[in-house]
Amino acid sequence: MSQIVNRRDLDFVLFECLEMERLFQTDRYSAFDRAGIEAVLDTAQAIAEERFLPFASTLDANEPKFVDGKVEIMPEVGQALAAFAEAGFFAAGMDEAQGGLQLPYVATSAINGLFTAANLGVASYAFLTTANANVIAAFGTDDQKARFLPPMLEGRWFGTMCLSEPQAGSSLSDIRTLAEPREDGTWRLTGSKMWISGGDQEISETIVHLVLARTPGAPPGVKGLSLFLVPKHRIGPDGAVGERNNVELAGLNHKMGHRGTTNCLLNFGEKGECVGELVGGLNKGLAHMFHMMNEARIGVGHGAVMSGLAGYLYSLDYARTRPQGRHPQDKDPTSPQVPIIEHADVRRMLMAQKAAVEGGLMLSAYCAILVDRQKTAVDPEDAAQLGLLLDLLTPIVKSWPSEYCLEANKLAIQVLGGYGYTRDYPVERFYRDNRLNHIHEGTWAIHGLDILGRKVRMQDGAALNLLVGRLNEIIAEAEAAGDFDEETAGLSGAIEALLQTTRIVVDCPDLNRGLANATLYLNAFGHVVVAGLWLWQAVRARKGLETGVSGDRAFYEGKAAACRYAFRYMLPDALTGFSVVRSLDDTCLSLTAEQFVGT
Amino acid sequence: MSQIVNRRDLDFVLFECLEMERLFQTDRYSAFDRAGIEAVLDTAQAIAEERFLPFASTLDANEPKFVDGKVEIMPEVGQALAAFAEAGFFAAGMDEAQGGLQLPYVATSAINGLFTAANLGVASYAFLTTANANVIAAFGTDDQKARFLPPMLEGRWFGTMCLSEPQAGSSLSDIRTLAEPREDGTWRLTGSKMWISGGDQEISETIVHLVLARTPGAPPGVKGLSLFLVPKHRIGPDGAVGERNNVELAGLNHKMGHRGTTNCLLNFGEKGECVGELVGGLNKGLAHMFHMMNEARIGVGHGAVMSGLAGYLYSLDYARTRPQGRHPQDKDPTSPQVPIIEHADVRRMLMAQKAAVEGGLMLSAYCAILVDRQKTAVDPEDAAQLGLLLDLLTPIVKSWPSEYCLEANKLAIQVLGGYGYTRDYPVERFYRDNRLNHIHEGTWAIHGLDILGRKVRMQDGAALNLLVGRLNEIIAEAEAAGDFDEETAGLSGAIEALLQTTRIVVDCPDLNRGLANATLYLNAFGHVVVAGLWLWQAVRARKGLETGVSGDRAFYEGKAAACRYAFRYMLPDALTGFSVVRSLDDTCLSLTAEQFVGT
Repeated sequence: MSQIVNRRDLDFVLFECLEMERLFQTDRYSAFDRAGIEAVLDTAQAIAEERFLPFASTLDANEPKFVDGKVEIMPEVGQALAAFAEAGFFAAGMDEAQGGLQLPYVATSAINGLFTAANLGVASYAFLTTANANVIAAFGTDDQKARFLPPMLEGRWFGTMCLSEPQAGSSLSDIRTLAEPREDGTWRLTGSKMWISGGDQEISETIVHLVLARTPGAPPGVKGLSLFLVPKHRIGPDGAVGERNNVELAGLNHKMGHRGTTNCLLNFGEKGECVGELVGGLNKGLAHMFHMMNEARIGVGHGAVMSGLAGYLYSLDYARTRPQGRHPQDKDPTSPQVPIIEHADVRRMLMAQKAAVEGGLMLSAYCAILVDRQKTAVDPEDAAQLGLLLDLLTPIVKSWPSEYCLEANKLAIQVLGGYGYTRDYPVERFYRDNRLNHIHEGTWAIHGLDILGRKVRMQDGAALNLLVGRLNEIIAEAEAAGDFDEETAGLSGAIEALLQTTRIVVDCPDLNRGLANATLYLNAFGHVVVAGLWLWQAVRARKGLETGVSGDRAFYEGKAAACRYAFRYMLPDALTGFSVVRSLDDTCLSLTAEQFVGT
Repeated sequence: MSQIVNRRDLDFVLFECLEMERLFQTDRYSAFDRAGIEAVLDTAQAIAEERFLPFASTLDANEPKFVDGKVEIMPEVGQALAAFAEAGFFAAGMDEAQGGLQLPYVATSAINGLFTAANLGVASYAFLTTANANVIAAFGTDDQKARFLPPMLEGRWFGTMCLSEPQAGSSLSDIRTLAEPREDGTWRLTGSKMWISGGDQEISETIVHLVLARTPGAPPGVKGLSLFLVPKHRIGPDGAVGERNNVELAGLNHKMGHRGTTNCLLNFGEKGECVGELVGGLNKGLAHMFHMMNEARIGVGHGAVMSGLAGYLYSLDYARTRPQGRHPQDKDPTSPQVPIIEHADVRRMLMAQKAAVEGGLMLSAYCAILVDRQKTAVDPEDAAQLGLLLDLLTPIVKSWPSEYCLEANKLAIQVLGGYGYTRDYPVERFYRDNRLNHIHEGTWAIHGLDILGRKVRMQDGAALNLLVGRLNEIIAEAEAAGDFDEETAGLSGAIEALLQTTRIVVDCPDLNRGLANATLYLNAFGHVVVAGLWLWQAVRARKGLETGVSGDRAFYEGKAAACRYAFRYMLPDALTGFSVVRSLDDTCLSLTAEQFVGT
């Protein structure tokens, strides 16, 4: 069994549920077929397993160091990324016109997931580079694209996203970094950026920072932010890497997890002139960044899934082989010990992991294929609807796996017992790594406010209606298949609770009070969506049982059981969550700072 | 505000809720009064804050090393423990007759908690020593007590508990370590012990291991285990520390948290004769160990509370001072940022922490004072009833805080955002530390089986009846106080669900199926107990509001709000949990190993 992926499950999600083959009938993806996608996944899996996975634990224990102003890092990191580059994966998702392979996003997402599960500290350098290149491709000038994209897509230059500052994390409107015009049309950057992943390293020839900054006279708040392309070295008109550009590494942050990726405090223009180029329109910086944000957030959720999956696969393998204890009814201490998967609670913990990670995978893959469907929609109205649906699902795909796949990692540790709590086994690392996902790319709370304060209200609830329509299609397919009465009734009831709760909050004249439990709403909403996706999986698994090969029987039966688990053990939490939200309870909101501890 | 304790809350729990002063009317504790206990707590707090807390983070980053067969550890560890010893805390709970201070257990538990919150990696050496000394005091011969107790109570010798082996963690019946009789009445030990906290160090003059081992011809399983006192050095008849006793450090385990305490693989008698003394009766080893187990497990739960509390206090302080963002209705980016405690979801996260850690503190203190009441009961029938109640509550006090105070630590990280995820702030350390508590002293699953498979069935449900009686007393007190209709109705309903669920499971002829969701039962049961204890706190807070000093108003109002939170946000989860348990659902139990991933 691979430690990073269950390819049978990935195939099931991509082809049997999401019907990815329909994408190949579109102009954009007509060059691909199922065999081609599977071959790319084979290549990615081989590189991930052979070049990324072997040193993941060592890298975690030997995080990058800040020595004489430079970053020291294990040489295996650069070697692994060179293999990634050589296979063309930096350019996997980029348009052919820009020199890319133009793979569907759902495929590049699956590819990226393999590298996340194998060694996310290394993979992050690549993901940041492609995200950065996507922004340049979307908003850069032809000249910028010509100079920056080829070396980035070849994996020779890496990229970063520089948004946060020490005093401005969640509150981007308080960004202070300044960009002042120079005579030649370029800009002079000054300021500090915090939490910059990949912000410095000595692996790539240079680093291309995308920096949110404020220009003189710009409006206050986020409406006055512009986006600048600020390389670590000056880049000549011919694309040659020149002298340093006064982007200084001021310090490395030392995190609980994600230790393989440098995370930096960067100073721009502190010791000399730091020159940047405007990307896109003046004061459009945040909008340009957010153009990529849906994909970035799907990426975070998918990353949470893959860390969860890595823990699930590891603990499942352990549970099958570790002998310990006997069945409750076996009182004979001389009888042989059983593999711990025989114990009911170990099975429960494995099932909880399965429901979270396979449910999360279906969620992230569904959102990813919506991106592709939006890109390939012929009718602009279809594209708009797909965009709306995606906007609504983005806070969910970001947050639900960040919670429940972290819980899965917690259970993976528990399955291994004392061993799982040591650094000799990878499960505690997955747990530490996964804890970040609720924090970066918007905290859990921010996504709660986003969905309840904005997304469900857009166009009079149009996005919510679209989603409910999709869930009802799943219910209809389940009813047609028969024998899913428990699930269809459960999902219908949960949808009703979701709609009723939403109405009550939207109608609440007191905005603060209505949003007081927005995070709980987001959490409950996530359970409803994931339950719907589990039902979808169960219905398709039934079809597989009826028409598939007999060797798949256990796989499909496992899907049916996991669907029951999702409905019986998880979905009820949505109902209790919605109850709290629609009661407009202000127990927490109304507490004063003094009342928490009495002083 | 102290970073390790809210003394106002501790006073409230000990004196206003648990009426600790009633203990001082018993013979055993007649030497104490409230002022005396508070003075001891003052001393403990000062030592914890001045000698333990300052290097907690440094110790975590510089864990003990295995160098040339010995343990290298920061010298501050020994210095802190010397201060702990000098204040007499090694002997705090021991009987006067044995040279101890004979403090109530609930007081020593509170004292220990301060050191846990300050630096649990250091405190563990002391806790293990006193637990060990308690076993010797209970079951040792007069000669053993005379030789071993004085140096242990002076903190010159430390102690350990050696139960687990590499192949026998949860399954103690598979212990293989052998003890063979020597001619002089002592025993020759051979075997390996795993996960031994404090198993080696160079701080104390020697180490007293209490080792579970099997004697030749002993019955199989746990009924053939005896307990041996095995010192690191041979101890002369006069108590002099002699040559090494062939207890060899084979390796240190490197854990996710708890890094300050050595955790060892020890080999006994591998390279030469290792001599031990029998403690207590032959084949009574596990029974003797379990004599101390209730207290050990209360200690684990209380430790989880204190790690949770440390995170709560830190994140509360941070939330009061960190400016970030604005209220939802404030759209002006030039207005000043507000402290993040102004944000609804930050308040929710702080309240969730408060409900968990203050609820957990009440739970662990309640169990601790039951130990004292049992010890001081005049009527043997009373003592037996208190023992039954304590037996029932032990799996809950061990497990509920291990879950919900870990969740509290997760939220403390979230409150700090990106900063919380770095090792520059202590909250991620608390989270890593706290993750152990579901694993040691019996895993979560084992406590689930213990409560549902054994404890609620004891004497035809006598323990459960006692607990329900106690909860009904709280309900009666709340009804007399008035204005707690929501809570009394909620608690009564939850008790009914608990009883009904218990009946269905106990009546289930299929033992495995009945116990399949025992962990969920334990979790839901914990919510019911903690809700009852929150109602108790709220009723006493009302009394405080009516009769106390006005400066306490905010404190008491906070208690009332936290009680509402416990009933509205947490207790409903008990009802969904009981629903699953009483449905006797076998979704997880019936899954085969193949169905998890299809192969």
